[in-house]
Amino acid sequence: MSELLDMLARVQSGDITISEAAAALGEREVDLGFAHIDTEREARRGLPEVIFGPGKAPTQMVAIAQALLDAGQNVFATRISEPQLAALQAAFDDVVHHKDAKAITIDRFPRREAEGAVVVVCAGTSDLPVAAEAALAAERMGARVECICDVGVAGLHRLMGHLDTLRASRAIVVVAGMEGALPSVVAGLVQRPIVAVPTSVGYGTGLNGMAAMLTMLNSCVPGITVVNIDNGFGAGVAAGMINRRDDTA
Amino acid sequence: MSELLDMLARVQSGDITISEAAAALGEREVDLGFAHIDTEREARRGLPEVIFGPGKAPTQMVAIAQALLDAGQNVFATRISEPQLAALQAAFDDVVHHKDAKAITIDRFPRREAEGAVVVVCAGTSDLPVAAEAALAAERMGARVECICDVGVAGLHRLMGHLDTLRASRAIVVVAGMEGALPSVVAGLVQRPIVAVPTSVGYGTGLNGMAAMLTMLNSCVPGITVVNIDNGFGAGVAAGMINRRDDTA
Amino acid sequence: MSELLDMLARVQSGDITISEAAAALGEREVDLGFAHIDTEREARRGLPEVIFGPGKAPTQMVAIAQALLDAGQNVFATRISEPQLAALQAAFDDVVHHKDAKAITIDRFPRREAEGAVVVVCAGTSDLPVAAEAALAAERMGARVECICDVGVAGLHRLMGHLDTLRASRAIVVVAGMEGALPSVVAGLVQRPIVAVPTSVGYGTGLNGMAAMLTMLNSCVPGITVVNIDNGFGAGVAAGMINRRDDTA
Amino acid sequence: MSELLDMLARVQSGDITISEAAAALGEREVDLGFAHIDTEREARRGLPEVIFGPGKAPTQMVAIAQALLDAGQNVFATRISEPQLAALQAAFDDVVHHKDAKAITIDRFPRREAEGAVVVVCAGTSDLPVAAEAALAAERMGARVECICDVGVAGLHRLMGHLDTLRASRAIVVVAGMEGALPSVVAGLVQRPIVAVPTSVGYGTGLNGMAAMLTMLNSCVPGITVVNIDNGFGAGVAAGMINRRDDTA
Amino acid sequence: MSELLDMLARVQSGDITISEAAAALGEREVDLGFAHIDTEREARRGLPEVIFGPGKAPTQMVAIAQALLDAGQNVFATRISEPQLAALQAAFDDVVHHKDAKAITIDRFPRREAEGAVVVVCAGTSDLPVAAEAALAAERMGARVECICDVGVAGLHRLMGHLDTLRASRAIVVVAGMEGALPSVVAGLVQRPIVAVPTSVGYGTGLNGMAAMLTMLNSCVPGITVVNIDNGFGAGVAAGMINRRDDTA
Amino acid sequence: MSELLDMLARVQSGDITISEAAAALGEREVDLGFAHIDTEREARRGLPEVIFGPGKAPTQMVAIAQALLDAGQNVFATRISEPQLAALQAAFDDVVHHKDAKAITIDRFPRREAEGAVVVVCAGTSDLPVAAEAALAAERMGARVECICDVGVAGLHRLMGHLDTLRASRAIVVVAGMEGALPSVVAGLVQRPIVAVPTSVGYGTGLNGMAAMLTMLNSCVPGITVVNIDNGFGAGVAAGMINRRDDTA
Amino acid sequence: MSELLDMLARVQSGDITISEAAAALGEREVDLGFAHIDTEREARRGLPEVIFGPGKAPTQMVAIAQALLDAGQNVFATRISEPQLAALQAAFDDVVHHKDAKAITIDRFPRREAEGAVVVVCAGTSDLPVAAEAALAAERMGARVECICDVGVAGLHRLMGHLDTLRASRAIVVVAGMEGALPSVVAGLVQRPIVAVPTSVGYGTGLNGMAAMLTMLNSCVPGITVVNIDNGFGAGVAAGMINRRDDTA
Amino acid sequence: MSELLDMLARVQSGDITISEAAAALGEREVDLGFAHIDTEREARRGLPEVIFGPGKAPTQMVAIAQALLDAGQNVFATRISEPQLAALQAAFDDVVHHKDAKAITIDRFPRREAEGAVVVVCAGTSDLPVAAEAALAAERMGARVECICDVGVAGLHRLMGHLDTLRASRAIVVVAGMEGALPSVVAGLVQRPIVAVPTSVGYGTGLNGMAAMLTMLNSCVPGITVVNIDNGFGAGVAAGMINRRDDTA
Repeated sequence: MSELLDMLARVQSGDITISEAAAALGEREVDLGFAHIDTEREARRGLPEVIFGPGKAPTQMVAIAQALLDAGQNVFATRISEPQLAALQAAFDDVVHHKDAKAITIDRFPRREAEGAVVVVCAGTSDLPVAAEAALAAERMGARVECICDVGVAGLHRLMGHLDTLRASRAIVVVAGMEGALPSVVAGLVQRPIVAVPTSVGYGTGLNGMAAMLTMLNSCVPGITVVNIDNGFGAGVAAGMINRRDDTA
Repeated sequence: MSELLDMLARVQSGDITISEAAAALGEREVDLGFAHIDTEREARRGLPEVIFGPGKAPTQMVAIAQALLDAGQNVFATRISEPQLAALQAAFDDVVHHKDAKAITIDRFPRREAEGAVVVVCAGTSDLPVAAEAALAAERMGARVECICDVGVAGLHRLMGHLDTLRASRAIVVVAGMEGALPSVVAGLVQRPIVAVPTSVGYGTGLNGMAAMLTMLNSCVPGITVVNIDNGFGAGVAAGMINRRDDTA
Repeated sequence: MSELLDMLARVQSGDITISEAAAALGEREVDLGFAHIDTEREARRGLPEVIFGPGKAPTQMVAIAQALLDAGQNVFATRISEPQLAALQAAFDDVVHHKDAKAITIDRFPRREAEGAVVVVCAGTSDLPVAAEAALAAERMGARVECICDVGVAGLHRLMGHLDTLRASRAIVVVAGMEGALPSVVAGLVQRPIVAVPTSVGYGTGLNGMAAMLTMLNSCVPGITVVNIDNGFGAGVAAGMINRRDDTA
Repeated sequence: MSELLDMLARVQSGDITISEAAAALGEREVDLGFAHIDTEREARRGLPEVIFGPGKAPTQMVAIAQALLDAGQNVFATRISEPQLAALQAAFDDVVHHKDAKAITIDRFPRREAEGAVVVVCAGTSDLPVAAEAALAAERMGARVECICDVGVAGLHRLMGHLDTLRASRAIVVVAGMEGALPSVVAGLVQRPIVAVPTSVGYGTGLNGMAAMLTMLNSCVPGITVVNIDNGFGAGVAAGMINRRDDTA
Repeated sequence: MSELLDMLARVQSGDITISEAAAALGEREVDLGFAHIDTEREARRGLPEVIFGPGKAPTQMVAIAQALLDAGQNVFATRISEPQLAALQAAFDDVVHHKDAKAITIDRFPRREAEGAVVVVCAGTSDLPVAAEAALAAERMGARVECICDVGVAGLHRLMGHLDTLRASRAIVVVAGMEGALPSVVAGLVQRPIVAVPTSVGYGTGLNGMAAMLTMLNSCVPGITVVNIDNGFGAGVAAGMINRRDDTA
Repeated sequence: MSELLDMLARVQSGDITISEAAAALGEREVDLGFAHIDTEREARRGLPEVIFGPGKAPTQMVAIAQALLDAGQNVFATRISEPQLAALQAAFDDVVHHKDAKAITIDRFPRREAEGAVVVVCAGTSDLPVAAEAALAAERMGARVECICDVGVAGLHRLMGHLDTLRASRAIVVVAGMEGALPSVVAGLVQRPIVAVPTSVGYGTGLNGMAAMLTMLNSCVPGITVVNIDNGFGAGVAAGMINRRDDTA
Repeated sequence: MSELLDMLARVQSGDITISEAAAALGEREVDLGFAHIDTEREARRGLPEVIFGPGKAPTQMVAIAQALLDAGQNVFATRISEPQLAALQAAFDDVVHHKDAKAITIDRFPRREAEGAVVVVCAGTSDLPVAAEAALAAERMGARVECICDVGVAGLHRLMGHLDTLRASRAIVVVAGMEGALPSVVAGLVQRPIVAVPTSVGYGTGLNGMAAMLTMLNSCVPGITVVNIDNGFGAGVAAGMINRRDDTA
Repeated sequence: MSELLDMLARVQSGDITISEAAAALGEREVDLGFAHIDTEREARRGLPEVIFGPGKAPTQMVAIAQALLDAGQNVFATRISEPQLAALQAAFDDVVHHKDAKAITIDRFPRREAEGAVVVVCAGTSDLPVAAEAALAAERMGARVECICDVGVAGLHRLMGHLDTLRASRAIVVVAGMEGALPSVVAGLVQRPIVAVPTSVGYGTGLNGMAAMLTMLNSCVPGITVVNIDNGFGAGVAAGMINRRDDTA
């Protein structure tokens, strides 16, 4: 944090303005908790402030959501429990419940225009909630999202029917439990960045998702990166970031 | 693999040509072991065939390198041992030894033009070989690569001096051992996709990189994805893929 | 997957027909999700399509079962929950509930004739559900199955009374929790392939079946192979495959 | 061991002869350490007495080998160190050194006629010693053995060229390190019993073969069973047992 | 098991009688499942047949208890659930419920006379069920048992008041959760064989008793041996065996 | 414990008095279970006798509390369950329920005067119970305690507003789950002893707090020490000890 | 340690003498480092002071040995390295090197008369050093010791030939690596207290002895207790304690 | 990091000076890498910049040391290898080699006056390097340090002789391997903050220090905090911080 002093010196000397300093230091935390929250933040940044449900009282959930709305930000909350959902629905008329993703959103402000394409792939029925959370997160990052979540009987064969979709994407999220080999298979088919999400689906030596995670980390196909077990949200955000083209490089 | 049958039917009926089928199925494995290897592959694909050194005899290394050269491909080999290096240098005049990355390359064919920007960040001296491997891999994926590998005394403060570099990148690789908190710090500064590489640097409860890996996987800053411990190569390839803009989405 | 191209070329040239290609590539996924499902599949292959219960909604269970029946296949579903069972029984008149194995079957089509012999051995009462699942799976693979599941008081002594049965088998499944030494004992008595199933029965350092699994993997008696903890189904299928004599070697 | 009493009673009463009792109890240990060792044992049983090298002094190795030869049995020793090899070669003229498998054999007595077919599959150069050990063990169990051990560049594509070989086998051993997904792929191609051998090849989260082992144990393709990490010998013996047809079922 | 043949030969030749053979081979399994069960077994052996409750249906519990009683043996069942208890109490009038130990006994036959002394030590209230199980098991092995189970406030100081009791014992069971250091302390005070029982009491890095177990296994005071987590029964039996003086050495 | 003899000799010779010996040996255990309990103990020592709730029956809780009160000591009980709370409130009129900390206190005797300053920092709502327990424990050790437990939205930014508070403290407790990086951040801001408390907040590879604990133990910022997962009490006591200035050094 | 005060009071009042107090508190530490060391200690206690080799400089080894001899105690040092051995042999003429056990002894003072019987059982050649250490430790505890350490070919069959020896023992040490099932087998044969020693012999999932240890801890045959991996010394001491009959119970 | 903006605003407005801002933000990183390094830093801060040896080339070590000296700071380097030591001694005349601690120091500038007292306790010879590193680090933090590192024979008894020393300390570092129970014992004797350091001394289930660490983390005596395995440096710094009295609280 010693760069602070450097910035202080440059601001003091008039070398740069405060807002230039803010820009240089990353605007990320600037708007949090301040009165003057930048209402264009989400549209510009693509990532709304997100509320992680577990461990929060329903009343806390409502208060945080209200604070965000007051600051001109849309609301996105994940891993919502039944009581949390009930409290939010009682407090706000326009709660959208994303049942599969176990999430809610409240959109009262304009959102970033959708661009690019993120594909979310998952094979098994049990992995669906994680995949849905990933899809929702990527979409709220500003991505057009397509899901290939064929349940049950089908498998690789259906994936192949979506080869064009996969190829046209900018990033792919692959969700898998059990032995977690699906990301390797997809990586073998298309040259796109793949974010792999191990799920806790399985039993015994599946070790609540650890086996799937180890498989993904040890894949001999390069180009796969991994997030925490069941962390659909993190994967969706990462894919959403990859999808965006607002860098200057 | 049931899509094979579908392809067979479409090829048989003349609906598509073999090369169209190849394109549809992913050209990745097409050129391996065949006589008609596409000599423009690397330029187009950005990822040269890569030889993983450990467990291969020096003579095997030379034979594989020769086969690649015969097929019109450049050579890129990682984690090279001393005997492997000696054998390769004895066999080929134009071996380039990337000492920091413990890798070699032999470039006899045109390579893809560099584009975009990947930044590789690492703090400690001990993490340097992993960072160097990541940088080399990303560069061979077609990325312009910049390293922020300040050894020893300095730290975050030097990182801040490179904020513009970080912001202008399309992907960032962050290499860290010990407690592995650096990716979270970088993720807090810039909104770019971050590929985190835990290293085995540390001792005791560092568990040969496991502690750093767990930290990265559990980061509360979204947008970070993780590769295997010490897997600079995998991180470089992933960052290189993110860096490329040849998708159609 | 590069063999696809080879196949494409051979089909295109008329060298082989599509069905020959399908046969060469393994007919396994061919019939899934297609309209023209081979109704003789089970009789020929010995392995009916199997539905894994956990994580599926009761309505999904019914839909998949119906799809299988429509395709002319018998139904075999494992690890069925109470609600799943109720839904299936409500939907189909001819559900057979295998209570011990926590499985159901619906048989409307001819099944492969039973051959050979698989023996399933387990010692403790708590291991019975896993053993029953193994027995059912092997039976549906086309094996004649015999169980040696003496509960409670008895032990090795009763096993010895079945020595002839063990000797006459083609494969033996041994199910054991706690320290998991039973497969070693059986392997010391008879020269037959043994598939060992560790169960999660035990406590403390039993580590939910990990101790039993490690014992089995480290047995100094060769000829023992191991499946996942509590995976009676996998063991039964493996034993059923060993039991069959339809290879040409 | 209470069956002993039963046997004792039946032998005492003349109900059965000693050799019948021996046959009933499994002839396996009968010949060990006794004077009257059955010199046809190996031919009949298919499994020669095997010496596990690690932890034995070279002189001990020679003594055990001599004892086996004196008893009319061929010698098969695995994981031989350099000093052990030297001592054995100094003591016996007819030592055959299986360099890849790190094993030796001394064959002075007739061996069981080869039958059936076991296929050993491995992809990487580093996995070769484990695969070679498996092949040698299966062969000494009486199996005809074929190896598909394409080193380096090639992969699945070469495997496909051997589909007929795989289909004609009675058992398949699949050796894999890293993420260990190869057994699942082979199991998807052919309906044969598959013995999977995880190897310690890999690094970091590969956990010396643990990641590969977990992948194999959690495979969603049934029919795969697993042995200890690097245990090529055990896999070969298991495959050799499956290959044999001397049961009466 | 090759000794069987030796025994067979000696019985056949009249060299030894069946009962001599039985004695030589260990009388332990002789009486299991046979019609002629030795009703003096418990008095002589000190260890009644024990029923482990978990995983057994109430009706199974009753059946096994009845079989034991029919064979003239007393009943001892551990880790009894509420339904199991109810079923046993309904079936037998003379069930004794050992509430602390979560066990029951039915004594209808004479028991071995108490001898020696086993002391069971535990410090915390939460460890009491495990200690009570150990005490009951040792007592049924024929030991006089004394408990030093001071709950709550007191600690080492109360233990010191029992130094004479500890010194006069033949074996000591020490039950401890959390960091599990109590066995080391007791071993430092008295020179008696100590059987240490880690309990699952604790939280976080206590790892359900693993921390306590590791402490006990790594104690620098020799003379401590360890049983499974929460395995009061096993500790009591081991202490009971040490307590007995019926060897001939 | 051989120092006992030394003490015995010095007391016997009149070299020191019993109370001097007691003082020399640490007065800590002196007052436990004796009739003559020093009623000024808490004021002098700063640490009241503490009752750990889990595993104790409500009636036991009441009895221990009564015994402490009878001995002139205040009561402090942690991790209180609902039934325990009800029993204590029924038995004592003056129970103070610290809801956040899941603790109760009964203060009937004078307490040590507050001194110094301990700061308890935590970021997330879910970590609050652990932080509250730490704060209460430190306070009862005689420390003035300040909490920086900004829930939800805010973060580092609010911490910075408390820099003066942090700087003026004698010890800081930092409570964090997930990746557990907060202690490193605080340690980078102020040169004060930091006691880090990992919490079990998180999921998947968070491993119930293990990931956070490893992060804290591997921090590259020196000056951080760690307690058990969720052990707010232990952290509060340690911070309270650091806060006190009654040593003579 | 509050009993100190009690003792202090009783010594002060003349109620007991210092030596009585010493006896009451356990004489164990009394003689260490004092001038008046009881030269009859070993004969009475049966356990000589033992020096653990690892981590000690050769000169330190010599100094400690000299101190013990000066105090009239015999020397017993375990896990001796080559340099330590050389230094001890250079310093003392009468060093006895127990090569198998990797230990040395120097006996200049009378030792306790041998009594009872401890049997040490181990199967494999690689386990021999651990077994030899156990045997030596038990012997120095005053036990007559017999070893059943048949190397190589033989196995259970040779064990059976020693059934009388096993039955006549007071305690049995069983040493085993790999899957560690030998203690269960021995426990099934004889009703004697069994101290199980897992060894680090094995590979892969043997986890350096962890698999063997888990097997032993989870044995379904009660009466087995376990010591640390490779801890032959601890097992020998425990067996030696069980073997002794100097208690008064 | 949003506080930066706040600081920027206050500096810009002249509300505070740069040095006040620096003071507010923590002066810790200010002096690193800047030209104007505060030469009084160490005297004021008590913690010299420290070089961690592992992974650094000898030439890098020399360069960093030179940079520190050029900036007017003394040098303190830990875990020095032989080549690093040689290079430093060749480069600087006044290197002080702390052999036990495997560290070096170069003192050319005035150091903070020693105050207070830190005691470092360790029992075993093998733990000495860790203890010496802790002592050196605490001393360089400005503490008077006393060591109680009685090797070999002695133990608790010698510790008791130092009770006055322990009582007069402001912080105690306790270093222990094996089962790691020493910190609990010391915590039972004196009411001082205890920093526990597990060491990797031990074998088998000691798990390279993990068992000792778990013991320390699960101690039922509050007031103990823990650092990484073998992290003497971290413990010394923590104790040094506790020892200092420059807070204003």
